[in-house]
Amino acid sequence: MPKPFFDYSRILTQIAVEVRPLCDQGRVADYIPMLAAIPKSRFGIAVYTNAGKQYVVGDAEIAFSIQSISKVYGLTLALQAVGESLWERVGREPSGNAFNSLVQLEYEKGIPRNPFINAGALVVADIILSHYSNPKETLLAFVRARANNPYIQVDSAVAQSEKDTGFRNAALANFLKSFKNLDNEVSAVLDFYFYQCAIAMTCIDLAKSFRFLANAGICPWTNEAILTPSLTKRVNAIMLTSGTYDAAGDFVYRVGMPAKSGVGGGIVALIPNVLTTAVWSPGLNEKGNSLAGTMALELLTTKTRMSIF
Amino acid sequence: MPKPFFDYSRILTQIAVEVRPLCDQGRVADYIPMLAAIPKSRFGIAVYTNAGKQYVVGDAEIAFSIQSISKVYGLTLALQAVGESLWERVGREPSGNAFNSLVQLEYEKGIPRNPFINAGALVVADIILSHYSNPKETLLAFVRARANNPYIQVDSAVAQSEKDTGFRNAALANFLKSFKNLDNEVSAVLDFYFYQCAIAMTCIDLAKSFRFLANAGICPWTNEAILTPSLTKRVNAIMLTSGTYDAAGDFVYRVGMPAKSGVGGGIVALIPNVLTTAVWSPGLNEKGNSLAGTMALELLTTKTRMSIF
Amino acid sequence: MPKPFFDYSRILTQIAVEVRPLCDQGRVADYIPMLAAIPKSRFGIAVYTNAGKQYVVGDAEIAFSIQSISKVYGLTLALQAVGESLWERVGREPSGNAFNSLVQLEYEKGIPRNPFINAGALVVADIILSHYSNPKETLLAFVRARANNPYIQVDSAVAQSEKDTGFRNAALANFLKSFKNLDNEVSAVLDFYFYQCAIAMTCIDLAKSFRFLANAGICPWTNEAILTPSLTKRVNAIMLTSGTYDAAGDFVYRVGMPAKSGVGGGIVALIPNVLTTAVWSPGLNEKGNSLAGTMALELLTTKTRMSIF
Amino acid sequence: MPKPFFDYSRILTQIAVEVRPLCDQGRVADYIPMLAAIPKSRFGIAVYTNAGKQYVVGDAEIAFSIQSISKVYGLTLALQAVGESLWERVGREPSGNAFNSLVQLEYEKGIPRNPFINAGALVVADIILSHYSNPKETLLAFVRARANNPYIQVDSAVAQSEKDTGFRNAALANFLKSFKNLDNEVSAVLDFYFYQCAIAMTCIDLAKSFRFLANAGICPWTNEAILTPSLTKRVNAIMLTSGTYDAAGDFVYRVGMPAKSGVGGGIVALIPNVLTTAVWSPGLNEKGNSLAGTMALELLTTKTRMSIF
Repeated sequence: MPKPFFDYSRILTQIAVEVRPLCDQGRVADYIPMLAAIPKSRFGIAVYTNAGKQYVVGDAEIAFSIQSISKVYGLTLALQAVGESLWERVGREPSGNAFNSLVQLEYEKGIPRNPFINAGALVVADIILSHYSNPKETLLAFVRARANNPYIQVDSAVAQSEKDTGFRNAALANFLKSFKNLDNEVSAVLDFYFYQCAIAMTCIDLAKSFRFLANAGICPWTNEAILTPSLTKRVNAIMLTSGTYDAAGDFVYRVGMPAKSGVGGGIVALIPNVLTTAVWSPGLNEKGNSLAGTMALELLTTKTRMSIF
Repeated sequence: MPKPFFDYSRILTQIAVEVRPLCDQGRVADYIPMLAAIPKSRFGIAVYTNAGKQYVVGDAEIAFSIQSISKVYGLTLALQAVGESLWERVGREPSGNAFNSLVQLEYEKGIPRNPFINAGALVVADIILSHYSNPKETLLAFVRARANNPYIQVDSAVAQSEKDTGFRNAALANFLKSFKNLDNEVSAVLDFYFYQCAIAMTCIDLAKSFRFLANAGICPWTNEAILTPSLTKRVNAIMLTSGTYDAAGDFVYRVGMPAKSGVGGGIVALIPNVLTTAVWSPGLNEKGNSLAGTMALELLTTKTRMSIF
Repeated sequence: MPKPFFDYSRILTQIAVEVRPLCDQGRVADYIPMLAAIPKSRFGIAVYTNAGKQYVVGDAEIAFSIQSISKVYGLTLALQAVGESLWERVGREPSGNAFNSLVQLEYEKGIPRNPFINAGALVVADIILSHYSNPKETLLAFVRARANNPYIQVDSAVAQSEKDTGFRNAALANFLKSFKNLDNEVSAVLDFYFYQCAIAMTCIDLAKSFRFLANAGICPWTNEAILTPSLTKRVNAIMLTSGTYDAAGDFVYRVGMPAKSGVGGGIVALIPNVLTTAVWSPGLNEKGNSLAGTMALELLTTKTRMSIF
Repeated sequence: MPKPFFDYSRILTQIAVEVRPLCDQGRVADYIPMLAAIPKSRFGIAVYTNAGKQYVVGDAEIAFSIQSISKVYGLTLALQAVGESLWERVGREPSGNAFNSLVQLEYEKGIPRNPFINAGALVVADIILSHYSNPKETLLAFVRARANNPYIQVDSAVAQSEKDTGFRNAALANFLKSFKNLDNEVSAVLDFYFYQCAIAMTCIDLAKSFRFLANAGICPWTNEAILTPSLTKRVNAIMLTSGTYDAAGDFVYRVGMPAKSGVGGGIVALIPNVLTTAVWSPGLNEKGNSLAGTMALELLTTKTRMSIF
């Protein structure tokens, strides 16, 4: 794939202007007060090229709740711990249903369809609990190291609030336990899961933290091999087919990049060997992905003519 | 319907002989050790006629875990507390699926199909917790009064064991809570539910305790109107369509009596204005009803030519 | 059950007055023009007691399309032909879903839940085609003999119209064929099925034609044993648990009689050894049963205090 | 992406050797006799690079039934006719269920999840019937032109056999018609669909015929713009997320190429701007994709380190 010179600053600025009207149309997640309080008008985008350049526009330096984007970090840690044996306990097929559905889980006897639906992320959390002695510390240190930012925090009020209202996730965790697909206590798994979702990061942090996935598994700052090239490709494959809830097909169709979204309004996406990007706009579409964020990424691949296809 | 004189003793003895070979074929519930330990060879049956006669054969005086049969007591207490408004929170349609399925609950947005599937019984338990200041004491006193036996106990080891392993019920309760169809704490609802299931009773106790349902709502010992005649008919209607898990159609077809079964191997059934009966054999068929017990009740209606049809 | 003397004429007249306002509230089936054209104001009811008395009020002598009520005749003919072996190809559990759902059929590998959902009635039709040399003539002769009315006709315009628009039934039939649960050609099975649904009868016809089911299987006019007493009870059992689409639980709760409804607005119900009744009001409730008709039957059992419970 | 020089001949030969043991393990589709008769030992593979080189190994010149691979041609013709408005009648999300399931279709009210499940392909066929005056001739001419082979034929015995046994597809078509998502006669849609599936092609034909999809929409032989670059990317996106039945996630994970498989044992795959490839081995895995064929493609991307990630 050719890598022409783009004036990313100009392109990102254009995108911010074009998607601005969409920011008002989405619906901010309101199941916990902290998320509901975020103004819809926020919009930020950051791009990191593999050549080492950074481009940012808008609210790219405001931290927000990364929510499900954290599932990529969890998956990475679990793959580091157990490798491909992870697939004995989680599938890797797109879910074809709403992201927290119990139906398919029952149908498939407690094996979640993929690691990015909530059930799958709970199994991944269970694996992390079983293999790391200080799982929360390990996770936070991992995220800080990948983003090259030691100040990243977990918003404990968000974590607590999710715990207080997360009955559906508690149902999922108990259901998984009934199928013997959780080894640890339900409450411990949920505690870690809510902790993970409550990490607060900026677009800049997020785009930087995914760079190893666009770089054959190597973290650019530390030169560490976070994942093998093969596993790196596979995490990207799962993001592509399952990273954006029940809109993965539409997302691949329109955007054409592996990506992971969260209900906080963030989306991180990448083109292997070329760039990573993170966008944030709190208003969500009916599938739970950032409305303006999805459009921004579609415009990015359209304007640059870069996609994986 | 004519009420000819039957030699019930002879009929019950014949039945006990005829179903004996079936006792070995069922599968004893083994999800908690206390149930798994019960010998398959147990078989007891008791009949109480509305004329006041009692007939018993076999192990009718051995107490066993009544499990889901307790849902009838729960439903009665909840109807006493809130009357027909109960149906705003629970349906009364047969479930058409395995008895603890989450699928239908999701499809119907947190309204359980009927009060005898586990989800429905949890909502009933929630209502009881909201309306009685000492729910456990009230329940136990109610059961003792209906069975005219002050020595009935709850097997606390069974209750504890169910609590330790009841992840599927915990999933259901959290799921109901996520739909805002539980007012009390999940843990409190589960605690009461497991207490209720762990009541230990004999066939004699059970047959006696259901007599008000065959007697237009009047308890024969206390002369109390437990339910109005109208509500009594309606509880019987729900037992008929939903009392035997996903085998209700087959049960009505073969037996033709309103009935409630439990995984402990007990089944209580009745013909309004005629009799109540309770049977016990721990081996279950693939639908979770006592295998020999179902056949015993089919033989009872066949031999006496009594059924509601 | 006591059989006191009731002034049925007065009771039926009262009922007609009381349900009148409901006639306007239902929704007339409109999937074929012939049904859509029926005025909502029609209301008729007929009662036949086992003592041989007939009571009629309102439009009880106007013929209407019996639709799914015909499934009871089909089931009777199939049971005459193959007896209990019918249950190898059709279940007898309530369906727990909308009456023409394909989901459960797929889940249960081509065995319809019961003979009164459309899929089940198609299998029953297939059995009739395989066992009677002139199935349509046999069916019509059977219905005429049971109703003691040689003038009953099939509305061929209705049958043709259903054939032209019955894509969902064609889907079901092909689906059953794919599971090898139809022996005859799909088109032949559908042709017979649409013929059966298009029979036109009055409330009087219907109430008379079901009398053998309230009379231990004996047709009162011909003294023929149409079904054995045992099979008669079983047909009643299936009507009770599955005769009114996905409202069977509610219907049993409110009405307490075995019954079969049709989208033409008719419902036939009975109390074994006591009476049969047919009611007609074209406006349907959201479950597809006659709205005023269901209420009329509820009032009948309430006012006479007769029900099977 | 770098395009190093590969010794494709050597690589394909190695692959043929490595996957040989798998050829015996799959299960040949046996729902029609013509497919069941194909020997399992067949294995062929062809690669066409965008640089214009062709590499073939094994049975790459034997024609076989392309079956569902034809859905890509159908989709292309329909997009030529109606463009993006096609998505009003078909979705583009992975199905998450077995490829011919009716459940999801009911749940989504007659809008198939994507154009590559059978229901979606039937809607695509309906669009083609509505927009081309000689649809079969148009399709065959299109395929011949894309493969640059005027001798490609439809196996009419296969088409007839599918028509005789295709009850499940007939169920789907009638079901779609009941939701008004077919404009033409059910029988006409099925006739075209079975015709399309019965096209017989070789690996060489297939690899050549997909070259426009690896070439920004331009057919290399005719220089025609078959699709715009944008629509070309989108067809590739849909192949990636939905081209291999319910194994798309696993296929993307292991192979990482947009692809379309058929129950005849063929799979066509491509890397945009780099190559197309077609592989054939009749033995299928449990998801309905060629067992040895999938492994061959996995080895190809592994050995060449080329994938879209």
